[in-house]
Amino acid sequence: MAWRAALRSKAVIPGLLSCSSHGRLCASPTFITQRNNSTSPKIKVDYDQTTGVAVMHMQSPPVNSLGLDFLTELCISLEKLEMDKGCRGLIITSNQPKVFSAGLDILEMYGKSPEHCGEFWKVVQEMWLKLYGSNMVTIAAISGSSPAGGCLLSLTCDYRIMADNPRYTIGLNETQLGIVAPFWFKETMVNTVGHRNTEVALQLGLLYKPAEALKIGLVDQLVPEDQVFTVATQTMTKWLTIPEHARQITKSMMRNPTIDKLRTNREADIQNFVSFITKESIQKSLRMYMEMLKQRKA
Amino acid sequence: MAWRAALRSKAVIPGLLSCSSHGRLCASPTFITQRNNSTSPKIKVDYDQTTGVAVMHMQSPPVNSLGLDFLTELCISLEKLEMDKGCRGLIITSNQPKVFSAGLDILEMYGKSPEHCGEFWKVVQEMWLKLYGSNMVTIAAISGSSPAGGCLLSLTCDYRIMADNPRYTIGLNETQLGIVAPFWFKETMVNTVGHRNTEVALQLGLLYKPAEALKIGLVDQLVPEDQVFTVATQTMTKWLTIPEHARQITKSMMRNPTIDKLRTNREADIQNFVSFITKESIQKSLRMYMEMLKQRKA
Amino acid sequence: MAWRAALRSKAVIPGLLSCSSHGRLCASPTFITQRNNSTSPKIKVDYDQTTGVAVMHMQSPPVNSLGLDFLTELCISLEKLEMDKGCRGLIITSNQPKVFSAGLDILEMYGKSPEHCGEFWKVVQEMWLKLYGSNMVTIAAISGSSPAGGCLLSLTCDYRIMADNPRYTIGLNETQLGIVAPFWFKETMVNTVGHRNTEVALQLGLLYKPAEALKIGLVDQLVPEDQVFTVATQTMTKWLTIPEHARQITKSMMRNPTIDKLRTNREADIQNFVSFITKESIQKSLRMYMEMLKQRKA
Repeated sequence: MAWRAALRSKAVIPGLLSCSSHGRLCASPTFITQRNNSTSPKIKVDYDQTTGVAVMHMQSPPVNSLGLDFLTELCISLEKLEMDKGCRGLIITSNQPKVFSAGLDILEMYGKSPEHCGEFWKVVQEMWLKLYGSNMVTIAAISGSSPAGGCLLSLTCDYRIMADNPRYTIGLNETQLGIVAPFWFKETMVNTVGHRNTEVALQLGLLYKPAEALKIGLVDQLVPEDQVFTVATQTMTKWLTIPEHARQITKSMMRNPTIDKLRTNREADIQNFVSFITKESIQKSLRMYMEMLKQRKA
Repeated sequence: MAWRAALRSKAVIPGLLSCSSHGRLCASPTFITQRNNSTSPKIKVDYDQTTGVAVMHMQSPPVNSLGLDFLTELCISLEKLEMDKGCRGLIITSNQPKVFSAGLDILEMYGKSPEHCGEFWKVVQEMWLKLYGSNMVTIAAISGSSPAGGCLLSLTCDYRIMADNPRYTIGLNETQLGIVAPFWFKETMVNTVGHRNTEVALQLGLLYKPAEALKIGLVDQLVPEDQVFTVATQTMTKWLTIPEHARQITKSMMRNPTIDKLRTNREADIQNFVSFITKESIQKSLRMYMEMLKQRKA
Repeated sequence: MAWRAALRSKAVIPGLLSCSSHGRLCASPTFITQRNNSTSPKIKVDYDQTTGVAVMHMQSPPVNSLGLDFLTELCISLEKLEMDKGCRGLIITSNQPKVFSAGLDILEMYGKSPEHCGEFWKVVQEMWLKLYGSNMVTIAAISGSSPAGGCLLSLTCDYRIMADNPRYTIGLNETQLGIVAPFWFKETMVNTVGHRNTEVALQLGLLYKPAEALKIGLVDQLVPEDQVFTVATQTMTKWLTIPEHARQITKSMMRNPTIDKLRTNREADIQNFVSFITKESIQKSLRMYMEMLKQRKA
């Protein structure tokens, strides 16, 4: 399959944001079907009431693009789990081969009205607010590449376990595409890898191989590819031994200052995004990027 | 002796807060005597006027619990030394075997009136304010395990030298007991090991072996057990070569933002602690913890 | 030559601030000439319009002291380059052997009027504001020792490449001389190497050998002495592939909070510096330091 070959060739791995119509680009009608079939869930949630652990399997082919529908579904699932007091842990992983999530769906920002872009950005914010501030223990089982929004998704979790495969990469590579990670992406990264690593990574839009990501602390642990989920489950068991209430208060204490900055500036952040992304020059950058992706597939 | 055996077995080392009545638990009347004998100083201060260096030997059996009397004595000693312009350096160490300090004394928070808990917390704050903001060069000679408040005590110092014995541990393990390190414990740790290490350490209530503590920067240097004090003295000599006034201003510049946050919120922080610690559920956690300690000794 | 011998002997390397009259001290009339010859530029700027990269060669013998004239010239050059939209990258390096820059010129602060000291400090601020906030990609090619203000200069850049020669050192060693790095020196260092490294480094006035500097992140890369400039040029090429506008916004997002703190407190910071540096005790420290430098040369 063209997409897998592209992934294998590493050519696509440095891709920043994903494009949910990749299927069309590589002429695979399957993808179009799945794209349009909004009744087919993009996320499969397995919740084991005996352990109190839920697993979110992202299953939106080809690359778990974070589009409006996907993120809306994610937020609704999160809200349900959060409100179930018995659900104490959440593992996020991917059912798609070679990719965790390729990030925000470019098609939600390209050639769209300001209203649409604003609506999309609001749900991106909502996903981050819900996950970064979750009362649950959250673990990312990063089974493949995780650029841009995919990296952000994993950074919201309490712990990151990545497949030790040098073909995969992870990072906030927005500048490579000519766009900018907003302040709350930046702060999430600073809270994880520090100011200086973030300064270089964001300016250059760096994508790290697993070993490099581990070195700077972008992920917490590398395991063989077939053990990512097993180790995530074992790690969850360990985290769940900690007294619940004390752990939650501690997590809030660490993360609320960052969360509050977005909460109190949410509307301004949306306006900022919309006015940036709808600029002609930025739209042109997005178009060029998508054409580059198309050519790589050809 | 039961206590030492317990320490040796590592079973007690993960203990968070100490309990000054351990002596009673292991039926050693000596401890009770020392506990009740308030005229016997819990801290021995040796001050060498020729070098300008004072040494505080914590000697409150069995584990240098930071109780109300202990901390009051500590604060009074600190104030005297701070006011003596000739005293430029302070080494804090322990005369108790295998332990630096086991942290805040649970008995000051268990089954006590809100007034007592508030009075206790005030002196915990006072200890931190005096040490973290001290004009003296302060060095922790960590000769044994140092959980919870013992870890905080060492974190207030300018430099931490720990005995390189894998049986010892150090860390802010409050969540393990179902309680929460307050924001100024958290900020002291963030200032030392960074945001991400703190986030994981505090959520899981991690206790680190010396090698791990060195790796994340929780301590600055490991030395063989019998050289901790000697190396602390040598290090002090080096620090005292730095022009006094410039070093003090620099230290203030680094630490005052954190200190000011507590100073301006001291009363609210006390109210916060009292309302938390006197909750029935938290009192129950403390009781369970003490019973666990008792069983480990049996 | 006495100066080079001194540098070689390492005795002068721990020097904090430089003294532009070293030439006189070691009886080299050349230096005096260059000092007084204000028409001879202290900085040679090579700007290649085809690559969009400018190179600033600091060439103020003997040690590129950052005096009033030097910094004024630096700021004027920076302003010109910044306004030229074609100039996208700046490499800062030294034409003087064994030294990048020895830092602020003591003679601008010793025995001078408060007005002069204030005027001097204003241009130090200006240099920092212009460089730390530059829209250009800035790379420091650190070809020799870089204490105090020399270290600050390199810290303002986006990337630091240092000659891997253990005779060279780098660091903010102000306290060694009895003076204090101001808050914006401190914040620049915290943003680079984190809070704890900065706390120790600034209190002790540490100067790091290249390998140590790399370890804590004070520099980004070590290369053989004769390849510093070549590697800087190659690195620049890489940075310039990143979409300009996105990189600039990202850089601003990382650095503006720190820049704004000085911008909004500039006058108070000047007053603070002037009242400190003109104190009798501080002037005495500066005199003693210069005498020590003189004796080392003798």
